[in-house]
Amino acid sequence: MIDLRSDTVTKPTEAMRKAMYNAEVGDDVYKEDPTISKLEKLAAELLGKENALFVTSGTQGNQIAVLTHCVSGNEVLLEKDSHIFYYEGGAISAFTGVQTRTISGVKGAMNPDDVQAAIRGEDIHEPETGLICLENTHNRAGGAIIPVENMQAIFEVATNAHIPIHLDGARLFNAAVAEGKSVKEFTQYTDTVQICLSKGLGAPVGSIIAGSNEFITKARKWRKRLGGGLRQAGVLAAPGIIALTEMVDRLAIDHENAMYLAEGVNNISGLSVINAVDTNIVLVDTTDKGIPSNMYVEKLKEAGILAVSFGPTTVRLTTHFDINREQVNEALTAIQRI
Amino acid sequence: MIDLRSDTVTKPTEAMRKAMYNAEVGDDVYKEDPTISKLEKLAAELLGKENALFVTSGTQGNQIAVLTHCVSGNEVLLEKDSHIFYYEGGAISAFTGVQTRTISGVKGAMNPDDVQAAIRGEDIHEPETGLICLENTHNRAGGAIIPVENMQAIFEVATNAHIPIHLDGARLFNAAVAEGKSVKEFTQYTDTVQICLSKGLGAPVGSIIAGSNEFITKARKWRKRLGGGLRQAGVLAAPGIIALTEMVDRLAIDHENAMYLAEGVNNISGLSVINAVDTNIVLVDTTDKGIPSNMYVEKLKEAGILAVSFGPTTVRLTTHFDINREQVNEALTAIQRI
Amino acid sequence: MIDLRSDTVTKPTEAMRKAMYNAEVGDDVYKEDPTISKLEKLAAELLGKENALFVTSGTQGNQIAVLTHCVSGNEVLLEKDSHIFYYEGGAISAFTGVQTRTISGVKGAMNPDDVQAAIRGEDIHEPETGLICLENTHNRAGGAIIPVENMQAIFEVATNAHIPIHLDGARLFNAAVAEGKSVKEFTQYTDTVQICLSKGLGAPVGSIIAGSNEFITKARKWRKRLGGGLRQAGVLAAPGIIALTEMVDRLAIDHENAMYLAEGVNNISGLSVINAVDTNIVLVDTTDKGIPSNMYVEKLKEAGILAVSFGPTTVRLTTHFDINREQVNEALTAIQRI
Amino acid sequence: MIDLRSDTVTKPTEAMRKAMYNAEVGDDVYKEDPTISKLEKLAAELLGKENALFVTSGTQGNQIAVLTHCVSGNEVLLEKDSHIFYYEGGAISAFTGVQTRTISGVKGAMNPDDVQAAIRGEDIHEPETGLICLENTHNRAGGAIIPVENMQAIFEVATNAHIPIHLDGARLFNAAVAEGKSVKEFTQYTDTVQICLSKGLGAPVGSIIAGSNEFITKARKWRKRLGGGLRQAGVLAAPGIIALTEMVDRLAIDHENAMYLAEGVNNISGLSVINAVDTNIVLVDTTDKGIPSNMYVEKLKEAGILAVSFGPTTVRLTTHFDINREQVNEALTAIQRI
Repeated sequence: MIDLRSDTVTKPTEAMRKAMYNAEVGDDVYKEDPTISKLEKLAAELLGKENALFVTSGTQGNQIAVLTHCVSGNEVLLEKDSHIFYYEGGAISAFTGVQTRTISGVKGAMNPDDVQAAIRGEDIHEPETGLICLENTHNRAGGAIIPVENMQAIFEVATNAHIPIHLDGARLFNAAVAEGKSVKEFTQYTDTVQICLSKGLGAPVGSIIAGSNEFITKARKWRKRLGGGLRQAGVLAAPGIIALTEMVDRLAIDHENAMYLAEGVNNISGLSVINAVDTNIVLVDTTDKGIPSNMYVEKLKEAGILAVSFGPTTVRLTTHFDINREQVNEALTAIQRI
Repeated sequence: MIDLRSDTVTKPTEAMRKAMYNAEVGDDVYKEDPTISKLEKLAAELLGKENALFVTSGTQGNQIAVLTHCVSGNEVLLEKDSHIFYYEGGAISAFTGVQTRTISGVKGAMNPDDVQAAIRGEDIHEPETGLICLENTHNRAGGAIIPVENMQAIFEVATNAHIPIHLDGARLFNAAVAEGKSVKEFTQYTDTVQICLSKGLGAPVGSIIAGSNEFITKARKWRKRLGGGLRQAGVLAAPGIIALTEMVDRLAIDHENAMYLAEGVNNISGLSVINAVDTNIVLVDTTDKGIPSNMYVEKLKEAGILAVSFGPTTVRLTTHFDINREQVNEALTAIQRI
Repeated sequence: MIDLRSDTVTKPTEAMRKAMYNAEVGDDVYKEDPTISKLEKLAAELLGKENALFVTSGTQGNQIAVLTHCVSGNEVLLEKDSHIFYYEGGAISAFTGVQTRTISGVKGAMNPDDVQAAIRGEDIHEPETGLICLENTHNRAGGAIIPVENMQAIFEVATNAHIPIHLDGARLFNAAVAEGKSVKEFTQYTDTVQICLSKGLGAPVGSIIAGSNEFITKARKWRKRLGGGLRQAGVLAAPGIIALTEMVDRLAIDHENAMYLAEGVNNISGLSVINAVDTNIVLVDTTDKGIPSNMYVEKLKEAGILAVSFGPTTVRLTTHFDINREQVNEALTAIQRI
Repeated sequence: MIDLRSDTVTKPTEAMRKAMYNAEVGDDVYKEDPTISKLEKLAAELLGKENALFVTSGTQGNQIAVLTHCVSGNEVLLEKDSHIFYYEGGAISAFTGVQTRTISGVKGAMNPDDVQAAIRGEDIHEPETGLICLENTHNRAGGAIIPVENMQAIFEVATNAHIPIHLDGARLFNAAVAEGKSVKEFTQYTDTVQICLSKGLGAPVGSIIAGSNEFITKARKWRKRLGGGLRQAGVLAAPGIIALTEMVDRLAIDHENAMYLAEGVNNISGLSVINAVDTNIVLVDTTDKGIPSNMYVEKLKEAGILAVSFGPTTVRLTTHFDINREQVNEALTAIQRI
């Protein structure tokens, strides 16, 4: 099977397994795990923030950010297809009690004027806007890169309104590598950020949130309430350190494979790629095949390819560490045959 | 001052004051207030539901409906400019813990296909859709009437998906009178409904929610938690009964006055009415005056007219019981002069 | 029927009905109801606070206080039989997301040392104590008066720990009249207070919360979310003003009647009064009658007396405005006969 | 340093590290991690439940149980010193919106009559009791074993009232080993149970919740919302399997060491052990030393022993896998010297 469902399916590398085996550990609830400390320090530096915190998943990192920034009765502005709104089970409202106000973006990027217009305030009928969330790269927009300029413009709107910005950067390293920028160039325009160690970077488990010292202190307590306070967490931090130090640059390969895959798919009659393929995600429209996406996903499976439905006639294919060029060619051949 | 801000500013009639004075009362927490019982029975019959409950405001009625229909982790579908989403302080998420998913309507009416496409389910990443909310007439769409056919189509979508529908009918009687229909013709396509006694119908305080016996039993407990369990509430029910029995038909006068006002405004250079004026609300665009709405509202005030800003260049004028044709003419003369 | 269930069953006086009839009103959501303004100003003065807000019930006032003082993740300290914990449907946790930590009081009064010992803080495993709630008079302790000295001592504990105090003073005027003190002598040791207009004071509907200007501004928004933002609320404020100005001193009569009733009950074989009857509440133990309280309440009803069960073998009898000495004598005769 | 703070400080064994290194993994969000599946199946069998779910901590397991069993507005009954109430940051109220009603137990065991008396119901003033929580062994009662007979009696009360029971069994294996019983003998009297792999059993990270298939299906979604949906979680499941299969019986050694430690401490002037030392926890009272517990903990630290304060004059010492008899003797010598 060629598994193009998600970059979450990557398995830990041999180096990661060895790192787990050898990890120096302690009880992280007492802040005594040296490998966790090393990972958090490294992540804070990379992201240009005062402090960082290991969390067990991207969803947990995002939820902690909302819990820490907001209070019940607030409203959160976010893109209508963003992960926090679309794929986190409504947790943002269930746990923090905030109302979600969505804005339709273009390739995942919200227009700063739309953000400005959506901010609410003191009026007795309105929830106060407590947070603006961005996502970069933007998953449902097909791994689209939100340009730094767009982030900067929204940051200015937010700063003027005294509203913090949280970045869901589960795939931020993909954006950075594709643009030849450091992640800091993006995160300078956010108050807090979440990055995943377990997607393209290949670690088995975990994400990082980063922000000010004050933010991380409060976040640590919300993490405990969510059950994310782990004991000998160094066994997860060890592969996480490898993810951040050794796995970033190679994302370029995934991007090349995605573009190669997209070009191949576009040459197949009845299929068309509908996103710009900025990074490692290819969105394929099956309309001309006259077949809904979930049925097409079944046909792909029979042909030895795993993919996911991403809308009534949209199929998502994702490249990652465990997919090489040869497998992409095999996939194209199989798709051609369907 | 000619007060066109809202139909909420109407003052109780002499008949209502007398009814308050004479009201037979009891302790309604013990269900012993005969006037409340009479009002609730009357309302249930009018609305075609098994049972009804007096609540202190439209917001309270809507919030109780959401609390009763949903649980934390659900998602609620509603129009992007609906009162529940726009004007209730995010209470729906603060109190029930539900995520709001908004749909852009046309003249306040959501496309049933959009509703169908937005329903979510068992997938582990998604909140379950717990409720669909409608609003009729739709305030921010300019008192627009949601056609019965639209309500029926959405009801079918909802019923197939086993999702209840709640109608914010704060101004449902305006829709019914304007269309020459009974309110039942609308409410047959909803599970529960809220109507206001204190807007166009002129009662000083109060709304009604109606639904099944089971719904009302649970709603009564949520009302208590919200602090809406009153004692000798018959003093409010008495004018409420007059509102439902004597004040409905005269809404036609407000609608005629609104249309007359709209035609007058359209003849004034630089102003244009941007809604269809289905009922008692007139939305005026001030763009051609080159002046933002909040400044125009100030100018109106200086000219003796109270109105509200309804967007950057939109002003809302509302007719009601305490505004007669002469006052509309005065208002037009004053607006002309600005 | 002699209704001794609660002082909530009192019906508005003729003066109150006239006041409703004549009330000058406006739209209180726009802060334009002059009678509401008058009532709120009067109440703030009486209670020695900067500002006050009309709410529809004691429960609503208490819930707004918790919503305004606390955030989700806080813990609230309160007496184990307090109304907020016992009789408000768990609303404090449902709406504000706070954990309740109860302390066993003596005659309703918590030991300041117990309060001190229960305060929690920064530790990552603990909720922060966000509020301490008192109740005076204490309903389930039999209308017991919490001594000013006890309130002062708890206030000192709270102030040292930077934790606000809210007083559920639904029956605070009973305490004040019984002790010959002004209510201010009690409220000086609380940050915020709720008083009921509709219990012993006889108004048909409503309560007041009072506190700082900043508190009331935030409270007003939470009131709106709860659905307590009323329109022509002056019709309720008018009898409320009479309650505060004309009905306070006469509470002494209720207290005398309660003491007279208690002495009479104590002379009846098999019954014993188990509270000190500080004010207008008499708790009767039915153990020696060999009959559970709910069955005894049924027997009382057959004998023409309404009462409520207050525990497995405890019955509560409450005197109020609509009960005179003659009726107390009738009640005693009837009880004797059972 | 001899670390007697908690059995959470245990470090993974060599066998556990090897298991991590070799673990067969998959994406557990897609339910494709074979090692997780193996662990969950094993745990369900051991605990006598239909199904089980890996979670990242005991707190997460407990919170998921509450989220799955209850809805907002419910009340939960639990012992006043239970972990869920005392050490989980008020998360139960913050996330599920339930009110906590605590019962004072004896050696951690609640009297079934007290549980019966505390159950609440349909009355409009009361929250419905939605869940009863037990803890076995009971941490703050000094690792006390809740007798099976007590659990059975409470289960009968709960079953009659149609209320589920959740057992916080973070240290349930300690109870089972100490009593020479299987864990199933305890869990037969609960609907759901949480056990920790990372306390006495020595795994680096993780807990298990178990219950019916329906419970686990719903729990899985709440786990995702909390951020506990992991990817290649098999790296944590592998040592977890060793914890359950190889580490249980040796808990007897920890219990012997704890008893030996307790006897030694009791022979030291000024110190007295105040719990029965049923399992691996020793509670030492420092009153006669005339020194508060937090200061005594400092002195212990200077003497090379880590312990935790457990109350104003109580210190907790915990034995575990990384503490042998020799170290206990060293600790006693050091304590003697203080």
